[in-house]
Amino acid sequence: MNLNALKKLLVGSPLATAQSRHERLTKTSALAVFSSDALSSVAYATEEILLILVLAGTVAFQYSIPIGVAIAVLIAVVVSSYRQTIRAYPQGGGSYIVTKDNLGTLPGVISGGALLIDYVLTVAVSVAAGVAALTSAVPWLYPYRIVLGVGFVALVTLANLRGIRESGKLFTLPTYLFIFGFAFFILYGLVRWTFGWDAEALAARPANPASQDLTLFLVLRAFASGCAALTGVEAVSDGVPAFKPPEARNARVVLAWLGVILISLFMGITFLARHYGVSPVPEETIVSQLARKIFGEGLVYYALQASTMLILVLAANTAFADFPRLSFFLARDGFLPRQFGSRGDRLVFSNGILILGGTAALLLVVFGGSTHRLIPLYAVGVFLSFTLSQASMVRRWLVRRERGWRWRWWVNAVGAATTGLVVLVITVTKFTHGAWVVVLLIPLLVMMFLAIHRHYADVAGQLSLEGYTMPPPMQHTVLVLVGDLHKGVIHALQYAQTLSPSVKGVYVELDPDRTRRLEEKWIKWSMGVPLVVLSSPYRSLLQPFLEYLNHLLALGDNHMVTIVIPEFVTAHWWQHLLHNQTAFLIKGTLLFRKNVVVTDVPYHLR
Amino acid sequence: MNLNALKKLLVGSPLATAQSRHERLTKTSALAVFSSDALSSVAYATEEILLILVLAGTVAFQYSIPIGVAIAVLIAVVVSSYRQTIRAYPQGGGSYIVTKDNLGTLPGVISGGALLIDYVLTVAVSVAAGVAALTSAVPWLYPYRIVLGVGFVALVTLANLRGIRESGKLFTLPTYLFIFGFAFFILYGLVRWTFGWDAEALAARPANPASQDLTLFLVLRAFASGCAALTGVEAVSDGVPAFKPPEARNARVVLAWLGVILISLFMGITFLARHYGVSPVPEETIVSQLARKIFGEGLVYYALQASTMLILVLAANTAFADFPRLSFFLARDGFLPRQFGSRGDRLVFSNGILILGGTAALLLVVFGGSTHRLIPLYAVGVFLSFTLSQASMVRRWLVRRERGWRWRWWVNAVGAATTGLVVLVITVTKFTHGAWVVVLLIPLLVMMFLAIHRHYADVAGQLSLEGYTMPPPMQHTVLVLVGDLHKGVIHALQYAQTLSPSVKGVYVELDPDRTRRLEEKWIKWSMGVPLVVLSSPYRSLLQPFLEYLNHLLALGDNHMVTIVIPEFVTAHWWQHLLHNQTAFLIKGTLLFRKNVVVTDVPYHLR
Repeated sequence: MNLNALKKLLVGSPLATAQSRHERLTKTSALAVFSSDALSSVAYATEEILLILVLAGTVAFQYSIPIGVAIAVLIAVVVSSYRQTIRAYPQGGGSYIVTKDNLGTLPGVISGGALLIDYVLTVAVSVAAGVAALTSAVPWLYPYRIVLGVGFVALVTLANLRGIRESGKLFTLPTYLFIFGFAFFILYGLVRWTFGWDAEALAARPANPASQDLTLFLVLRAFASGCAALTGVEAVSDGVPAFKPPEARNARVVLAWLGVILISLFMGITFLARHYGVSPVPEETIVSQLARKIFGEGLVYYALQASTMLILVLAANTAFADFPRLSFFLARDGFLPRQFGSRGDRLVFSNGILILGGTAALLLVVFGGSTHRLIPLYAVGVFLSFTLSQASMVRRWLVRRERGWRWRWWVNAVGAATTGLVVLVITVTKFTHGAWVVVLLIPLLVMMFLAIHRHYADVAGQLSLEGYTMPPPMQHTVLVLVGDLHKGVIHALQYAQTLSPSVKGVYVELDPDRTRRLEEKWIKWSMGVPLVVLSSPYRSLLQPFLEYLNHLLALGDNHMVTIVIPEFVTAHWWQHLLHNQTAFLIKGTLLFRKNVVVTDVPYHLR
Repeated sequence: MNLNALKKLLVGSPLATAQSRHERLTKTSALAVFSSDALSSVAYATEEILLILVLAGTVAFQYSIPIGVAIAVLIAVVVSSYRQTIRAYPQGGGSYIVTKDNLGTLPGVISGGALLIDYVLTVAVSVAAGVAALTSAVPWLYPYRIVLGVGFVALVTLANLRGIRESGKLFTLPTYLFIFGFAFFILYGLVRWTFGWDAEALAARPANPASQDLTLFLVLRAFASGCAALTGVEAVSDGVPAFKPPEARNARVVLAWLGVILISLFMGITFLARHYGVSPVPEETIVSQLARKIFGEGLVYYALQASTMLILVLAANTAFADFPRLSFFLARDGFLPRQFGSRGDRLVFSNGILILGGTAALLLVVFGGSTHRLIPLYAVGVFLSFTLSQASMVRRWLVRRERGWRWRWWVNAVGAATTGLVVLVITVTKFTHGAWVVVLLIPLLVMMFLAIHRHYADVAGQLSLEGYTMPPPMQHTVLVLVGDLHKGVIHALQYAQTLSPSVKGVYVELDPDRTRRLEEKWIKWSMGVPLVVLSSPYRSLLQPFLEYLNHLLALGDNHMVTIVIPEFVTAHWWQHLLHNQTAFLIKGTLLFRKNVVVTDVPYHLR
């Protein structure tokens, strides 16, 4: 069919199960693969802090450095905490699994739901920020930012439906380009600032008027926005089995590196933004403004913007691996529909990928493709799952009391307490700006998970063969619904005769003259099948038939009735509208009747 | 079911076929029943003439009287012509039947299509004008005119779905109220004008500036708009069998009366409008302005507006009898889907009524509930069917040459020629203003009629038992699709065993471990049914199964394969989404496969 050809063109030919292979990553590749999500937030985290502070006027920017330091400390705490998780879960310690393991099902699915939401937001926020990097460099694209965002999402979705198996190769170049590019950018900027080479630029500082008071609440809200920098830090601990052995050790090293790089880049940009006195504007990102001031509008500037855009798209891409994988775990445990548990013919979890892409694109449209408007929804889920995951570790050390558990317990306890506090800060300060959506959505998702789980468990119980005794053989009546006698009906009668020796034709009489004509033909063509004629005083085809059917079904719970309906298959779709109305009506009416099977026997017209 | 209860509440309980009865109308009732459509146009025809003339400034209003006279003559011609049709078709001479009878199928269905379109417009125009009568009297309702219009259409639709059997009673009072009310209105207005009692009002004449030149084309366009006055004149000749005997004679008398009344009222309003110097404005109708000037804003004024509104709604109601009846004739002859040929349980042609109501409501919304914007589409269809119907009579007299045929021939020939000329004038002058829609729609409808007719004829030929020899008995294989082994599958297996002694279970293997577990259970529970295991290197459930199916179907054209799929019926709709995906997929794929029957065996979950 044409649809199949299109799918093949877009998504590629099916891959055999045997083609599934596992790539083992060196530390260098692993850093590239697992850090893009976390590092890419450097592109917007500083800006989001300033966007809140600016509400209290330019003067409030002095708080950006302390807030930056607080976030850097937070990164260090979370990274240390996750290094413990890696040690305990060398087979991969995703928050859902770790939490379910140690705290039980309910905290587990809460963590799962929170993460699913955050993966969707990762895609939306990263793509929005990537588009912002692009439109900062190419301003005439700014009006098309929503279309561009949806286009990026579509592209990444498609790439993932094909299956991106060359992940190491794909990630290495852009990630290291970004890391070294930004390192150079920051160092060069610091040198220029130290020697006062940009004195002129530094002199011309924008003065934004204050629209709000500079309160502790506002500073905390700025901190909460900056916490977006931490999203994606958990990726390494999820992916331990992908490392070359010794897996856990390598993963711990890579995570430490990730922490160091993330802190350096984030603090560097925050420091430069403070001292170059840039102020957020809708049309151009802070990073772009800084790069323009430091490098001028040359090749280096454009290369920096391009690498920013690239790593942001890669970050979005990361969620396309995480979301379907988590959905798979949830489906395997019966919290999501089974469709999420099966791989498509390209070996990827197509349903999860499609749902993630669709929801993220929808978010981009609803929020006008603006990073800033999406941020209040972001990070709530991630920090909730951080907290649950660290709390799980706390409990685990307590229960197992392995060698050296005391100080590990302390690391995780500090991690859990800190991230728990952050959840509170984020939720409270961003609640009215959009966080309420997530606060509402997480319990709704959890309720859905539990309802699905209960349903599957209930069905499994109902279907179980444990202690089941085979019911006695069925009684069976076959009725052929007859409106007229023609080749299609004879075809259906012949078919019905192969089903049962006791077939009956049923005809609803609307006009006695037609009945007489039918009965004359019937004698000749019916192959001995008896004809039941039902009268219909109200011209309803359905009512008399239903009464007859009820009468048959009353014979016993063991009695099945098969209703054979001759149906036309026409050459063109519109011709279908000219036939089969009765068949359609009867199928609709009897869809949920117990002990009734409706069988269409297609008769093919030329 | 709830839907049935709602239907019963709105539409009423079913009526038995035996309850169908035929009311015979006296001349007085018949005039009431058949004239509302034609007479109601008095409410807007004059206004539509002025609305065109005003484009050339108030001075152009002098042409309203000559145009009115031309239309009066046209009415006389058409009435005389239709009196001949009544004589020839005492059993009811609808244009479709008369034309098909005398000129052949193609002209017949052209006439039918044209009339169907005009019936829809009758509803839309009449309701829009009725709402205008209401909002002229109650100006604060003016902004709600679209909602009011759609509401009226819904009401009339519902009334007709219930079945309006008391037609004589229903029509008599409002129609005669309208006739006598307007007669009094016009006479009193003439008296006041003659004696110069309204000298003041007459002095204050509005002067509209000209926006176009006063050309012959504009005058013809005004005439074309006024021709809306003639729609509905054909109703009497369609309904001859409803008269008391002698039917034809009584009908001819009533038609003559209708002509006289229509001409008098229409000319009266046109004359008063000219001499009271009223000018069309969007918010108030001409008739309302006149009545206000002549009677002042008292009880008489409101009664007049109410009776105008009432007769316009009745006129819309007329189309609700005509449209379904014509659809029935077209469906009976195979030009429309069979659904239009059957009466609903209230003895009415529900499908035709619903389509008419829906389309008319849509038109009201699209055209902003404005009579004036609908008028350019109106009357094209009616005059086309007038012309075809009169031309049919011309041919009939020529062929039959009955006594006195010569002068009757002349009457119809003049009728055909005149109405034909009017079709031309209407089409040309209103083409760019909307008539093009109808000019396009009529051939499209005709093409649809013919395609449907060809299809039904073709199918009848394919199904005919003429010279048919019974095919040999069928071979039959029954496959039960197995994903797991549980009570639902056992239910399906038991059912399948009643269908055939040679049932096979088919299982697509995705994971060899699961196959092993299934096979162990199978031995215990399968009641001797063999299990076919198909391997699936690409994890597709469908592909291996389709290959196996093709292999079976290749056994011969006489070989049927029944695929039994155990399907769950869940307690809640959302639970359905958690199951049955495979069943759905397979049904979708095999829907149009020859010699394949897909049978769902429902298993009811609590």
